Amino acid sequence: MIERIAILGTGLLGTSAGLALRKAGFRGTIAGWNRSPEQAELAREMGALDSVAGDALAMAKESQVVLLATPVFAILDWMEQLAAVLGPEHLVTDVGSTKLQITAAADRLFNRPERAAFLPGHPMAGKERGGAALGDADLFRGAVWLFTNDTGWKRSPVAEELVRDWRGWVAQMGAKIIDLPSARHDELVAWVSHLPQLVATSLSALLEDEVGEAPELKDVGGRGLREMTRLGASPFSMWRDIAHTNTEAIAAALLALEQRLAHLRENLRTPELRAEFDKANRFRRE
Amino acid sequence: MIERIAILGTGLLGTSAGLALRKAGFRGTIAGWNRSPEQAELAREMGALDSVAGDALAMAKESQVVLLATPVFAILDWMEQLAAVLGPEHLVTDVGSTKLQITAAADRLFNRPERAAFLPGHPMAGKERGGAALGDADLFRGAVWLFTNDTGWKRSPVAEELVRDWRGWVAQMGAKIIDLPSARHDELVAWVSHLPQLVATSLSALLEDEVGEAPELKDVGGRGLREMTRLGASPFSMWRDIAHTNTEAIAAALLALEQRLAHLRENLRTPELRAEFDKANRFRRE
Repeated sequence: MIERIAILGTGLLGTSAGLALRKAGFRGTIAGWNRSPEQAELAREMGALDSVAGDALAMAKESQVVLLATPVFAILDWMEQLAAVLGPEHLVTDVGSTKLQITAAADRLFNRPERAAFLPGHPMAGKERGGAALGDADLFRGAVWLFTNDTGWKRSPVAEELVRDWRGWVAQMGAKIIDLPSARHDELVAWVSHLPQLVATSLSALLEDEVGEAPELKDVGGRGLREMTRLGASPFSMWRDIAHTNTEAIAAALLALEQRLAHLRENLRTPELRAEFDKANRFRRE
Repeated sequence: MIERIAILGTGLLGTSAGLALRKAGFRGTIAGWNRSPEQAELAREMGALDSVAGDALAMAKESQVVLLATPVFAILDWMEQLAAVLGPEHLVTDVGSTKLQITAAADRLFNRPERAAFLPGHPMAGKERGGAALGDADLFRGAVWLFTNDTGWKRSPVAEELVRDWRGWVAQMGAKIIDLPSARHDELVAWVSHLPQLVATSLSALLEDEVGEAPELKDVGGRGLREMTRLGASPFSMWRDIAHTNTEAIAAALLALEQRLAHLRENLRTPELRAEFDKANRFRRE
């Protein structure tokens, strides 16, 4: 079915998707475009793309499936532009980290007669640093790939086939698909993805102030410290959009953790400390 | 010089020390004692010990070097008992996670004429679960092994030789030695070890309440979530003593992180968010 894929944004995820599709046996064409053409050229040299496009909209029109692999605000911008030029023979999908706003835009701009289809997606995979050079054909192996399943969409039969086929390729790339409503998605990832990231950022920034001057002493913390701060290297460019588009759920999760830490601090010498360790042990039970 | 070592406490660290000494070429005898004899027997079967002692104090008297490898309060108890039965021909050292109280006890009970020597130590190595079965000859390879160097101790020439020789074996086990005052030790580890641990505990306990009911959704968080909660499996038994003996420094570090998280929460949509990411990126610069 799918023979022509366009990847719009060839950073870590876009490049990895191209490489993973090839490894999974996709034999059609993969075109790519990136804001900075060097990154697209690098993705092509790595084997993730057959060709680098100069005009993203022309490339999209020539493809059957467009994969939007940019930060969230750029995805929202491209959705506006693509909706105006694509028709019911096209499927657009994405890898954006928050889904409420993107799914609302899909409702408004896609998924109705005479319009292109849109399937909001989110692979739970990444690295603490971005860029095509880190692209990895196995990035999605064993990872969860979320799709939002808000209802009420009327797609053409061709579009429904493209959706089924794209889901098949996602499974071929090694990912485990979970469907859930966009509101539940954004609440869930606030807890299991955005909160851990922002804790790593805060902890790293605090330690930079407290022990950053004594770099050899970072060794003292060992593996635990390295793990708890690895995500401190994550780029602001991506997280700005996440913080802006999931603010309420993230703020609620942060506040809950602040209260939990205060409770622990006030109970360092009481039996409550044991209760917190027991509960944490349960979360990590095998 | 050192030909007879006694390991008092054959959990993860004690067993690993026995295995690491053997791997480093130590050819003398290693005796071991543990509160639950099965753990000591297991350590012996693994090759960490030559013999399991029934009487810890008798074992200590027959050795030149006693390694205390229990949680901090048990170390303090053993220090009282050992000081009464050992003399200037003995060196006692430890692997306790906090050093102010242990170093003060060393001042009071050891390191003077007619008394045994005591060298407070702390290898920055471990696993999120304890027990002899996880003992590992390479646990200390590449890790920092801290010694406190509070001054004013008058040890016998024999004891000074034992100290030098023990430091040599620590280096042979692959550890990097750093000497620092006990007050600086406890402040530093509050930031780089105790704070990361308690953040992992709090985050894990919070997530157990929020998403613990949906275990398949833990997969959604991926590697970042796994790393940020791995230390959630750490045992209360060890951390109780740490929280009790470094309460003030830990509370200060927790409060600082609470304030940092609140600041982030209040700035999810302001340029301050970039400043925090930039600072965190600096902590993780290569």
